[in-house]
Order: sequence, then C-alpha cells, then structure tokens
Amino acid sequence: MSKRIVIIGGVAAGPKAACRIKRLAPHYEVTVVDQDSLISYGGCGIPYYVSGDVADEKELRSTSFHMVRDERFFEKAKGVKTLTSTRAVAIDRKAREVEVIDLASGRSSRLPYDSLLLATGSKPVVLPIPGNDADGVFSISDLHQGIAIKERLAKAQVGKAVVIGGGAIGIEMAEALTDLWGVETSLVEFREQLLPRIIDWPLAVMLEKHLRDNNVAVYLGEGAEEILRDDQGRVTGVRTGKRTLEADLVIMAAGVRPRSELAREAGLHVGAGGGIVVNTRMQTSDPSIYAAGDCVEIAHLVSGKRFVAPFGSMANREGRVAADNIAGIPSVFKGGVASFILKAFKMSVGAVGLSTVAARDEGFAVDFSLTAPSDRAHFYPGQEIVCLQLLFDRRTRKVLGFQGAGPVNDALSARLDTDAMALAGGATIDDLANVEMAYSPPFSSAIDPLNAAAYVADNLCDGRMRQMTIEEFCLYMDDPSRHPEWTVLDVRHVKQAEPFVERFGASRWLSLPYDEVRDRYTELPKDRTLAIFCNAGSRSYEVQVFLDSVGVTNNIVVPGGFNVIRRMGPEWLPVR
Amino acid sequence: MSKRIVIIGGVAAGPKAACRIKRLAPHYEVTVVDQDSLISYGGCGIPYYVSGDVADEKELRSTSFHMVRDERFFEKAKGVKTLTSTRAVAIDRKAREVEVIDLASGRSSRLPYDSLLLATGSKPVVLPIPGNDADGVFSISDLHQGIAIKERLAKAQVGKAVVIGGGAIGIEMAEALTDLWGVETSLVEFREQLLPRIIDWPLAVMLEKHLRDNNVAVYLGEGAEEILRDDQGRVTGVRTGKRTLEADLVIMAAGVRPRSELAREAGLHVGAGGGIVVNTRMQTSDPSIYAAGDCVEIAHLVSGKRFVAPFGSMANREGRVAADNIAGIPSVFKGGVASFILKAFKMSVGAVGLSTVAARDEGFAVDFSLTAPSDRAHFYPGQEIVCLQLLFDRRTRKVLGFQGAGPVNDALSARLDTDAMALAGGATIDDLANVEMAYSPPFSSAIDPLNAAAYVADNLCDGRMRQMTIEEFCLYMDDPSRHPEWTVLDVRHVKQAEPFVERFGASRWLSLPYDEVRDRYTELPKDRTLAIFCNAGSRSYEVQVFLDSVGVTNNIVVPGGFNVIRRMGPEWLPVR
Repeated sequence: MSKRIVIIGGVAAGPKAACRIKRLAPHYEVTVVDQDSLISYGGCGIPYYVSGDVADEKELRSTSFHMVRDERFFEKAKGVKTLTSTRAVAIDRKAREVEVIDLASGRSSRLPYDSLLLATGSKPVVLPIPGNDADGVFSISDLHQGIAIKERLAKAQVGKAVVIGGGAIGIEMAEALTDLWGVETSLVEFREQLLPRIIDWPLAVMLEKHLRDNNVAVYLGEGAEEILRDDQGRVTGVRTGKRTLEADLVIMAAGVRPRSELAREAGLHVGAGGGIVVNTRMQTSDPSIYAAGDCVEIAHLVSGKRFVAPFGSMANREGRVAADNIAGIPSVFKGGVASFILKAFKMSVGAVGLSTVAARDEGFAVDFSLTAPSDRAHFYPGQEIVCLQLLFDRRTRKVLGFQGAGPVNDALSARLDTDAMALAGGATIDDLANVEMAYSPPFSSAIDPLNAAAYVADNLCDGRMRQMTIEEFCLYMDDPSRHPEWTVLDVRHVKQAEPFVERFGASRWLSLPYDEVRDRYTELPKDRTLAIFCNAGSRSYEVQVFLDSVGVTNNIVVPGGFNVIRRMGPEWLPVR
Repeated sequence: MSKRIVIIGGVAAGPKAACRIKRLAPHYEVTVVDQDSLISYGGCGIPYYVSGDVADEKELRSTSFHMVRDERFFEKAKGVKTLTSTRAVAIDRKAREVEVIDLASGRSSRLPYDSLLLATGSKPVVLPIPGNDADGVFSISDLHQGIAIKERLAKAQVGKAVVIGGGAIGIEMAEALTDLWGVETSLVEFREQLLPRIIDWPLAVMLEKHLRDNNVAVYLGEGAEEILRDDQGRVTGVRTGKRTLEADLVIMAAGVRPRSELAREAGLHVGAGGGIVVNTRMQTSDPSIYAAGDCVEIAHLVSGKRFVAPFGSMANREGRVAADNIAGIPSVFKGGVASFILKAFKMSVGAVGLSTVAARDEGFAVDFSLTAPSDRAHFYPGQEIVCLQLLFDRRTRKVLGFQGAGPVNDALSARLDTDAMALAGGATIDDLANVEMAYSPPFSSAIDPLNAAAYVADNLCDGRMRQMTIEEFCLYMDDPSRHPEWTVLDVRHVKQAEPFVERFGASRWLSLPYDEVRDRYTELPKDRTLAIFCNAGSRSYEVQVFLDSVGVTNNIVVPGGFNVIRRMGPEWLPVR
C-alpha cells in the first residue's frame, strides 16, 4: 500500500531519508519541502568553497558522479518530489497535514502525510548586539551566505575581517579568509579558549598558537559588543570589551540552535537543549512524526544524557534510521559520542566523547593521559608528532573521551574513529590498551599511539604514575614563586637541557640524562620536589618509578614533556 | 620480595616485558637472553632499511629519542640485564632453571628463575629445495640478513632478484629492491594469488596489477623448485615449474613458523599451529612459564579458534600483559583479530578479521559488501578512491572481516582500526552502520566509507540487493558464452559507457544513464539478465531497486563497478 511521506528540510537528513524511503518502499510518495532554493548541499564544505579549495558551489551539491542534486535530479533519479522555496508553517497533527507557503507566490496549501519527518536543521545564533544586521555581516547558515562572501572576496571588497566565535566554523572561516585571500583576519571568542568544552586547554592553546603563527589575530575572553557601520550601513568594525577591530566583513559564528519551533508549536516534546526529543527509532512524541539531524536531541553514549549534535555526518546516519522506521524496518540509532575533527592550516584537531570540563560537570572522576608520540614508526621518513589526550574515569577505568592535535593527515582520524567505536561500546582503558591497530612502519608504530595512551592511563589509574597538569606547570614557569620548592629535573640529552639550565639556573632547571639516573640519583637535591621533564613524558615516568623505588618520592611527571610545551609556545620557552 | 625473571628472546615481546616488569617491580632481577648479538630492533622496518628509506640500521634499534637499544642501554636506562650471543638450550622446569650457552666461549651455565617468559619469536620457512643454501639466498629472519642484503645492493652486486613468496614480507622486499635500487625483480608465489587467505581475490588482483605497473614481474601459481648456483656456490637463478628466472639475489619469504622447540622439549603444551598455547594471562601449561609474541597461539576473536599471529605490534601488547601477570597484576589478553596493513609502492592494502576463504572454511555464511568510495569528501582536493570489502555473516549480521586497498595515506588504517575495535567487541553490521567517524571534508565524507560499506551489507543481508561476484563478472567478460543471456546495463554517463558499447556492441553492453531509467526503462530488453554497472556500485543498486519495483527483476548488480574493475586492469577493459 502506498503511503504519503512528507519531509521538512532539504539538507543532509532530509534528502538522505527521502531517497532511502524510496529505495525501501518505491511506491511511497515522498515529498521534501524546503524554504531555500538550494538543497542537498554539503554545508560542511562551505569554508572550502569560500577559500577556493572548492572552485564552484555546484560541487558542494553534486554527487560523486558529478550530477547536481537539484529538483530535477531528485525527481528523475530518485523519484522524490521536492518543493523548494516553500516554507512549512504549521503541522496539523490531527488532520495529519503540513501547511506550507510557496514563497514566490505567497500561496498556502496543505500536504497530507501518513508519516512526517522533521529535518529542519539548525540556525546560527545571532548575537543581540547593535549592528548585527549591518551590510557585510554574515553567518554560515546556508550556501547563499557562502556564495555572497566569496563574491565579496572575489571583487576584492574585503581587506580586513573579524570572525566572532572560536568554534569549528569560526576557525575554518578564519583559515579560509587568511590562507588564500590574504584577508587580515581577527577572531574573537567570548570564552577563555578556542573550542571551549570540546577540547581541553593544552590542545586549545596549541591551536591558538598555530592560528597566530598563520596570521590570524586571536582575542580570547572578549565578547563582541557592537558591530560598527558607516552611513551606508556597511560594516566598518567590531568593538569588543577591550578594543575596536576594523573590518569590511564580519562572520558571526557564535554557535547554532536547533530549529524546533515548528515541532514545539505542534506540541511535540522539545528538550532542555532546544532539540526535538526522539526515541532510538527517531520517533518524536507523536508516533507518526519522526525527526532527524541538527534539530533533534539524541542520547550521549558517554554522559547518558541527551544532547544536540549538529554534525552533517550524524544527520545522514539519523536520516537513514528514520527512513528505515518510516518504511517499516525497526532500525535503531543508539546515540552519539560527538566525534569531531577540524583542519586549521597545517594542523588537525579533533575530539570524541567528553572534554575534561564536561566530564567533571557530569560527575565523573576524570583523569587524563597526555602523550606526544610519532604518528608512525619513529624511524619512518615523514613521521610527525601527534599530541593525544585520553580521558578516563579513575573509579571505573571507563574511557570518557579522547582528543588530539597533529598534522593534516588521517593519523588523528584513525585514533578518533577507533575511539568512537570504543566509546559506543562502553570501553575501558584496558580495551584500548589491547585494540589491534593495523601496523606496519609507514602507517603506525609497533606500540600504536592509542595503545600507548591507554598504557599511560593504566599507570595513572593504578597509582604508579603521578603527574601534574600542564596548566600547573605553565603557571609555575610563569611565576616560580607559586612553588618555591620545585626544581625541574630534565632527563633529556644534556644538549637539549642546556638552554633551559642557562635561562633558569640549576636550582630551577636541573639536567640529569635519563640513562645516568640509576648511577647518579644520589646527587639529586633531597629538599626539592622534582618535576620530571623529557620530550614526550615516557622517560619521565620511567625515572619516576626508579626514584620511587630508591625512596626519592618527592617527584612528579610533566606529562607530554617538551613535545607538548613547544606546541603551546609559552613565552618562557628558551628554544622554539 | 625480589624475584628472578628470565626472558628468552630479545626482540619485541621480550624487551617490552622486561622493561615493564622492571617498572612494575623495580626490585626484580630481570635477565633477557638472546642468541643474537643485535636485540630490540624493529623487524618490520627491515624492508625500509634495505630500500634506503631508513639510512642506518641503528635507527631500527633506537628509541624515539635516539638512544641505541643495546646491552648498555638496557643496563643503564632500564636496569635490565641482557645476555646477547647466548643461546637457551633447555628448560629444567623442576629446578626452575634455563640452561644457556655463551656462543663465543661455548661455555654453558644455568639461569634460575621464579618466572620465565618465552619470547622466542618465529623463524622463516626454508623451502626444502636444492640450492636453498646458496650464497645470495636470504630470508628476512633477522637484522643481520637485512644488513647483508643492503651491503650487496650498495656494492652494486645485485642486478636481478627473485622474491619467493607473495606475502607481506615478500611484497615489501620486492618494493625495496625495485623502487630505490632499480633491481630487476621477480616475485613468485606458489598459490594463485598474492596475500592468500589474507585478502580476497579482487583486492589481490589490484595489488598484483600495481606491482606489475611498478616493474615487479609477478608469477602466480608457480612454486620455486630449485635455486640455481654457479661453481662458487653463488646463486644464479630460480627455476619454477614453468620457467627459469635469473637472479643474483634470492629472498626467501615463504612464511614463518613459531619457534616453539624449547617449549615443546620442556613438555609445554604446543598447539596444532606450532605455537605455544597460552591462556588469556599469557601463561603456558606451566604456571611459572609465560610466553608472548610470534611463538604463541592466541584466540582469534572472530573464528573463536587459536591462531599464530606473527605481528610485531601484537608481540608488544602480549609482552605487556605477560609482564603484568609476572609482576602480579591480573591483566588479560583476550585475543586477536589479525589486523594487517602493507605499503606497496603507491598503494596501501590491509585486512582485519577473516578473509572470505577463511570465513567459509570456518562455516560462516559469509557474504561481502564491495564498495569504492572517495577517502574524503568527494569535492575536497586530493581525494582518492579506496576499495573496501566488508565481510559479514548473512545469518547473524556479525562482521567477519574487512579489507581494503587505497592510496598511501592513513585513510585505510582509520577504517581498519575502527573495524578492529568493532570485531573485538563482536559487532554487527548495524554497529558499523552507525559508528561515528569524525567528519569534516578534509578527513572523511558525510557518509563515511565504513558507514557506507555497512549500509550495503545491510541491503544485502535483508535481500534488497542482489549482486554477482567480481570473479563471475570477470569470467563472463573474458568469455561471454558462459552467460549468453547477460547484457551489461551501464548506467553511467553516456560518454563513459561509449567505449564499452563500441567494443562489445549494444547487445552485450547497453547504455542507459541513471537519471533516465525511470523514464525509459520500458526500452530495456525483457529477455536478458541485466548486469547493472556504474562507477562505484551505488547507482547500480538504486537502479536495481527501481527495476524490481516495476517488475523488471532479471537484474543483478556488479559491485564496486568501474572503480574496482579499472584497478584490477583486466585485458578486456577498453579504457585505462
């Protein structure tokens, strides 16, 4: 028996579900409604279209076999009817009809449905500040915005830009503007670090340094308070609490909110996060209405709570599960782990699960393993360092999250993805210690970075390793009076330690190479707390274990060592 | 209380365990015995040392911080005693002593132990053929062999080489000889494909083509029957069943066998595969003797049976678990999934779990999803195609294995590693359909290749998709009389289909573009079975679903389409 399926929303979840439904139930009538004229584009590709990496916006809405996904394509290739430039304004649940308005003619009509899918997506947060509607202020809410920004760039109308917001989109846009177009770009973030609550502070500082090294001016802890404009209403700058930044272009990238008004007005259950609440079958509180994509709240598989996960890939997976259920297949979508990755110039940054702050807020006994290994065999040409932070619960040994920063290759992806699978299964650090990463020297190392991160976590969990945080170490180096009893014990090669000893003096920075500790440990000062420092943290741990065994227990490891610190680039560093 | 720990074997598992034991129990006396003078080297790096990618053999036995792992290093840095050039000849289990011989002096002595770890590794299979001891015949059994081969290469003593064996080491050595040194290299493999029982035939053919494209002459189904030599005993060639190949150098890479004689002679339980049998605590049938590395049999987490897994990374993980148990921590090593990856020139090839042949032998109802997606967003510059084969059980939907071939980056690793985690947890294809791969366009696609592979598996499992095997398709194209009723239905762009239609005629190769099928399907011949063909297989599936829905059910999908076939490079292909 044929059924009428209406889908509101024509990007990611909507089209994915529409096409899947037609494949599962070819005789169903499937109609996609979208208020936009452009549909089914890769929204995550907009920064790469603006930068010029992707030459034509059509590429973002084409298949891999180069057909543009327009109304004709959906009709001819997919058998799906699309009503673009058509806004859904109300859901009549009793009559099972959606009221829509054709935006060109203003005419309204009603679309009857047997099942309805809400794939209404998200909308950017527009900061309620003066000038937020000035000419030249853009969000990255849809492809039109990307096209308009690129037009201005191509016409050389943009010399200076301000990006408001240090999240993924803000950072990607800052790169797009700076890298190819040479726009003098500033990025302001209200909170004290980039990617707040997504990655932890040390990695955020690495990213910040990398942005600065690539000519993006980064201002943290500064909210945009006003957007300035000239007599014609054109943007001229952004005023923060601390300064005024000139700008011909402002990108407002202050986050997104689920578009759930339609659902809310129809009386559907909407969660505290503003997303439509769905069960694992992607069904809303009305059994004949489903929802998927940026507009829903799903279960967080680590925290156990609901969260909004506005990721294009998640939307596709959710859309497929919704389609299955609409077509009568009982598929389930268990939830998400917030996998995330970002390219910023020559750096990849990513995370999965909870950050330290988020995990602490959820009540977990969160601890961290911070390592800085090679991304493949250390003897293999072209190997690079990747900094990894594995978060775990000391009580349960459960993995809580995983983060990293490395070069722009898939080395970080490989570990994030593996961890995503692990987190979905409720893995412990012991599972990660033994996960069998495919090894040969061009691809990984005999002890894979992910295994090694879990090894460190195991040593911490069992109390064999004691470490300080990077924050503590950096605060101390900025102001030694915080811990007058500390001395850094640098166990690297004498030559590596030398500039540090010269700068800080032997009472604050002591050099004793790793392989001489067993013979010479009695020379160490007994009245000091030794902060053990090496390149990556592993020699420090070994030295700690040895010193403990001979009764020199006033010691603590600086995790990640020089490999981490140099990427953060603090002022006190004597070498770069 | 101090204990005496003896470890037999100084590569991978042995040193890893030795150092871990010293960290867990600093007062234990740990002694490593090895018959070799060189220890603790990265054996998997030997091909890269031979090729010249790694300049100095010392790099293979150095730490990431450039200290050579020699006897002094273990003594000074690790507190571990090493007895090199010392052979363990017997285990006296009753007295708890190992009898060893100092190879220089010939003197024998006995080492008492509280716990003993056997990390005796594996030895290469030496084919019992005439000439196998000729001067110039090498295995890759240890670093000395690698050094000797490189010396001959550097002295320009090698113009032609024959590699016996189409496994990982053989292929890596063929690349090493050909790529940098320009040696005219042949590779002979007794069985009918490369990497037999590790990867399936279509991927093996891609690898074979790639080797040939890079000037390695590949001879399959040909065993080496004799190694020819001159009057001085120097190798001159290899005679197979079919031909004689000239050679100044022969690499015998016909597999490895566990070194388990010492264990067997001591009465320990040795399995059918020749490996020492251990429990999940890495304990042998004698509770005070542990074993780890290439010499053991572990549980295969997919087949449920025991297998020998001679991988350097596995050895390290096993060594750590053995160390834990020796030091009193009850760690477990659940088993392995045979993760494997290989670089061959500009191709990566990898596998995890069981191959189709192996899975069938184990009684699984094995089916396959063969896909050929982009390794990142298809609009992102530099994206490349990766061919993936996901194996699953039709009855239980359990994942059985996963294989792929792609460019030399970490895209394949990322999916293999994720799958390794999945297999260790007994995942189904539904788990893989929803695994949350980190997405942004530079790193993956909105529908990740691994998700997509699982989607196809789901469609196959539920009987929505019907496909032939690539073998069937290639056999048919070689000899159409096998299926006189077949016609290929090419749903790609007309221009792409054109050379095929020209070559084979419209009765054998019909062009009807994907987006015209709904309007024109009545033109299709009703008396033919349509083999639906596109670039990657997904349009073919969509067309199948549509044709089925309108009653044209005599159709079958060619999985993976042109992307797969072109990489296999069959003779009948009209375009390259």
